[in-house]
Amino acid sequence: MSTDVKGIAASDGFGIAPAYLLVDPDLSYDKKQVEDTAAEYTRVEKAFQDSIDELNKIKENAKGRLGDEELEVFDAHIAILSDPEMMSQIKNDIEDNHTGAEEAVDKVMTNFADMLAAMVDNKYMQERAADVKDVAKRALAHLLGKQLPNIAGIDHPVVIVAKEITPSDTSQMDAKFVKGIVTDLGGRTSHAAIMSRTLRIPAVVGSENITTVAKDGQMIIVDGLDGDVIVDPDDATVTKYETKATNFEKERAEWAKLVDAPSVSKDGKEFEIAANIGTPDDVADAVKQGADGVGLFRSEFLYMDSDHMPSEDEQFEAYKQALVGMKGKPLVVRTMDIGGDKPLDYLPLPKEMNPFLGYRAIRLCLNQPEIFKPQLKALIRASEFGPLSIMFPMIGTLAELRAAKALFNECKAELQKDYPGLGDDIKLGMMIEVPLAAINADNMAKEVDFFSIGTNDLIQYNFAADRGNDKVSYLYQPLNPAFLSLVKHVIDAAHRHGTKAAMCGEMAGDKYALPLLMGMGLDEYSMSATSILRTRSTMKNLDTTECAKLVEEAINNCATDVEVKDLVEAKLGL
Amino acid sequence: MSTDVKGIAASDGFGIAPAYLLVDPDLSYDKKQVEDTAAEYTRVEKAFQDSIDELNKIKENAKGRLGDEELEVFDAHIAILSDPEMMSQIKNDIEDNHTGAEEAVDKVMTNFADMLAAMVDNKYMQERAADVKDVAKRALAHLLGKQLPNIAGIDHPVVIVAKEITPSDTSQMDAKFVKGIVTDLGGRTSHAAIMSRTLRIPAVVGSENITTVAKDGQMIIVDGLDGDVIVDPDDATVTKYETKATNFEKERAEWAKLVDAPSVSKDGKEFEIAANIGTPDDVADAVKQGADGVGLFRSEFLYMDSDHMPSEDEQFEAYKQALVGMKGKPLVVRTMDIGGDKPLDYLPLPKEMNPFLGYRAIRLCLNQPEIFKPQLKALIRASEFGPLSIMFPMIGTLAELRAAKALFNECKAELQKDYPGLGDDIKLGMMIEVPLAAINADNMAKEVDFFSIGTNDLIQYNFAADRGNDKVSYLYQPLNPAFLSLVKHVIDAAHRHGTKAAMCGEMAGDKYALPLLMGMGLDEYSMSATSILRTRSTMKNLDTTECAKLVEEAINNCATDVEVKDLVEAKLGL
Repeated sequence: MSTDVKGIAASDGFGIAPAYLLVDPDLSYDKKQVEDTAAEYTRVEKAFQDSIDELNKIKENAKGRLGDEELEVFDAHIAILSDPEMMSQIKNDIEDNHTGAEEAVDKVMTNFADMLAAMVDNKYMQERAADVKDVAKRALAHLLGKQLPNIAGIDHPVVIVAKEITPSDTSQMDAKFVKGIVTDLGGRTSHAAIMSRTLRIPAVVGSENITTVAKDGQMIIVDGLDGDVIVDPDDATVTKYETKATNFEKERAEWAKLVDAPSVSKDGKEFEIAANIGTPDDVADAVKQGADGVGLFRSEFLYMDSDHMPSEDEQFEAYKQALVGMKGKPLVVRTMDIGGDKPLDYLPLPKEMNPFLGYRAIRLCLNQPEIFKPQLKALIRASEFGPLSIMFPMIGTLAELRAAKALFNECKAELQKDYPGLGDDIKLGMMIEVPLAAINADNMAKEVDFFSIGTNDLIQYNFAADRGNDKVSYLYQPLNPAFLSLVKHVIDAAHRHGTKAAMCGEMAGDKYALPLLMGMGLDEYSMSATSILRTRSTMKNLDTTECAKLVEEAINNCATDVEVKDLVEAKLGL
Repeated sequence: MSTDVKGIAASDGFGIAPAYLLVDPDLSYDKKQVEDTAAEYTRVEKAFQDSIDELNKIKENAKGRLGDEELEVFDAHIAILSDPEMMSQIKNDIEDNHTGAEEAVDKVMTNFADMLAAMVDNKYMQERAADVKDVAKRALAHLLGKQLPNIAGIDHPVVIVAKEITPSDTSQMDAKFVKGIVTDLGGRTSHAAIMSRTLRIPAVVGSENITTVAKDGQMIIVDGLDGDVIVDPDDATVTKYETKATNFEKERAEWAKLVDAPSVSKDGKEFEIAANIGTPDDVADAVKQGADGVGLFRSEFLYMDSDHMPSEDEQFEAYKQALVGMKGKPLVVRTMDIGGDKPLDYLPLPKEMNPFLGYRAIRLCLNQPEIFKPQLKALIRASEFGPLSIMFPMIGTLAELRAAKALFNECKAELQKDYPGLGDDIKLGMMIEVPLAAINADNMAKEVDFFSIGTNDLIQYNFAADRGNDKVSYLYQPLNPAFLSLVKHVIDAAHRHGTKAAMCGEMAGDKYALPLLMGMGLDEYSMSATSILRTRSTMKNLDTTECAKLVEEAINNCATDVEVKDLVEAKLGL
């Protein structure tokens, strides 16, 4: 009997494999009095040996993926399982008190862990206490014939089923065995979703209850296109989805042919499809995936990955590397979006009650020009190496925009004393992510070369809902008709003043949003590199006049985002 | 030589009095070897006696204002100053070691406090440790000839100068001596600002540096109309402001005559000026101040002041009391805005990273109807006792509005089984405070009887800036032209669909905003009760056709909020 679960489509493609539940099993046990104490202790010895074998195997599998320090944790666990003092305490408890193996292991190891944990001033011992508890869990699981989840130990094709996926899970995971991911929590911008798209793993997130519905080892189908999950499917369903998967792979192969093709609609209108990247090293992949440019280079990595404020020269080298790698294609760098939820060790900032509404990005840069000016100068210097655009994040008011431009011009003037003309070709733009800037798009457009609509933040602020908060994630509604009307207003305003309209949020790569955005005339679509070819392929089949009609209909006739989604599906046969 | 300091005008009126610095003085001292140890110990005895006298005096002054428990703290402090063991330790230190009085007092009392603080499991002793430290500070201040601030001890006219004012300061303050308040921090919605308006104390907040500019006892002029502060003014300036103050008092007396007058513009257009209140007890004052109604009754007090979820009957009694007190004038109740930064002991809610963007108000109510329905039923039942309107906070989408209305209708239908027609006269409205709702005002207006624009939150979300965060308080810009265009859009949309447009944020009582809002045709202005008569008086002198022209000019010709403010000032000669 199959069960259908609905979630949020987070990463394209179809995955069919047994479920791997990343959820701790029930390790409770009944206390008992044993007669054959020798046999009982043999059970302990076997469970410990099985645990050691298992840890060795996991460690072997993880080699090459994990660093030395992470691998040493396995050795520490194995050492605990070989501790003669602990073994003899367990043995004594069973022989003297006829205690059952589960209770003896639990009691002795918990005591041991508590003793270590009591050494409050010794951080090393406290960590060892956590190790002992981990090992006790593993031994108990073996005694009870249960399996602990261990993402590092996955060595066969699975669909991972979890409440949520943490970055530490991702670091241990061997992606080649992971055929799909389904989570209870999260939305399209959660770690699980972004990671799945990057690694090209089909994924459905926010299913709410997959961890209670699916059992370990049960066959699972993940439909990352429609957000469907089928648990324990019948054979006909498996066959149907295998066909879908094959067709999708064919489609993907077709997409690959578009790597050097222009991004053009059915009726011949040209657009640009660009990549969002985080470090200069990502440039190569963006180019390989056929990006027409980079629409968002997040410069935060320079600050987050450093133990000191990066110097102008360090920054210059990074921007230069990125521009050289672009081989003449345009690169848009967003100036630092630091502060709030992205703190730096070397830059003390006040703790804030609402960091998303706080002192960050351009607000910090305008108030602390000693931090901002080295970035601007590094960018101006790097602009010799390729077509560079700079955009300012979190601009809310005209006064902020003018102040940011004034600082840029000040930096340029200082550099041009020695290098006349340097930086004169740089295009200046701003993110549209603060609601007031969107409302004020007409006046903003007069003063910049381009807009880049940051839909993640723009949605978050317009709906007044933290996109990381599951309790209000239902308010992440890129297809809400009122929100669409705001996006259209921004694009129209840009074009009234000859300003380019780009988008770099998740929405730019959303298949339902694509025809609507084309209908509004959005010029540039910047997204995860892995979505570029699919988008270019879909774009080829869309007529912009029809798309424009669809926009009118969505905004004028629909009341909710669900109605818009249905409309897009019906019109385009998605 | 006078010094001018500029801040944010937070509460009307003029205050002229010596500065009272609510800032700890520098209590550092030089260590010395004394010859005449007897004289040195006499200094200690005198400082202690002076401290005791001072505490007695403060206590005497505070009687009647502070509760018994708060008064007992003074007795505890006096007891410490009379402790023979401590006195003899200080005496010995001076006699044996020739230690100076300051050092001896500091050393002995710090040791004593540390000893008490070391009793980690005894909360009582820990509090005594804090008392000893407080007393030591007071004794040291007397030895050094310095004065500790003590807001409860103020017994003569002063202007309070402080970094900021806490609710605990307010509770100790005898308002009749406080002629003005000036703070470094805060904006128009800070505690200091709201408290000053309620107590009718002229105030300027957010001056940034008043505590470093003004010295204790220096004459200070506070101009709460223009946000000006003059430190150490010359005689001519004092005379000028005394005249201004007299004129203002005359004006205030004129206003008092308007208590039963209609709220009407120079050209005869009628408006409503209403009060914002927090408890049923506030109704009497609102009526006394001439309110045309209550535009915002915050129902949170019912939940915040209770140790359990208030029952339907408890709520009914509160709403009934308020409606009866209104004597036929209309009352608008906002349904509960709980959650986020307003937690309840008896309603566990998840800790949120950004509570202002979290699970609160209507989001919580729609998800937990078992909490919401008793409130709706209590309101429907109370509606028998006067003209009642209900409004929903934090509505972002049409789907949310429809769900809230459906719950209301469900409650009404359940009650009407026994009481046919009950609640049929209730008007339903919504707050406009989530940006998307403002953008979508045309569709929203079709489905409600009235809007109430909550400008505090609407500004906060539109500028993506926490209004409680000083680092971004410069983004609280009600007069920003783009924000004004949004407010106008909301009012126009309401009127296109025959929906009433009200406002209940701080902006509704702002004198610069008033002509603009009248020009936009805002129907109802809900504000602190103390601002009602002033607003009614100003309204009388404004022509709506001229106001409408002012709106066009502000939106079309101004780039910043400062330009709008200048424009309003110039046009109206404010």
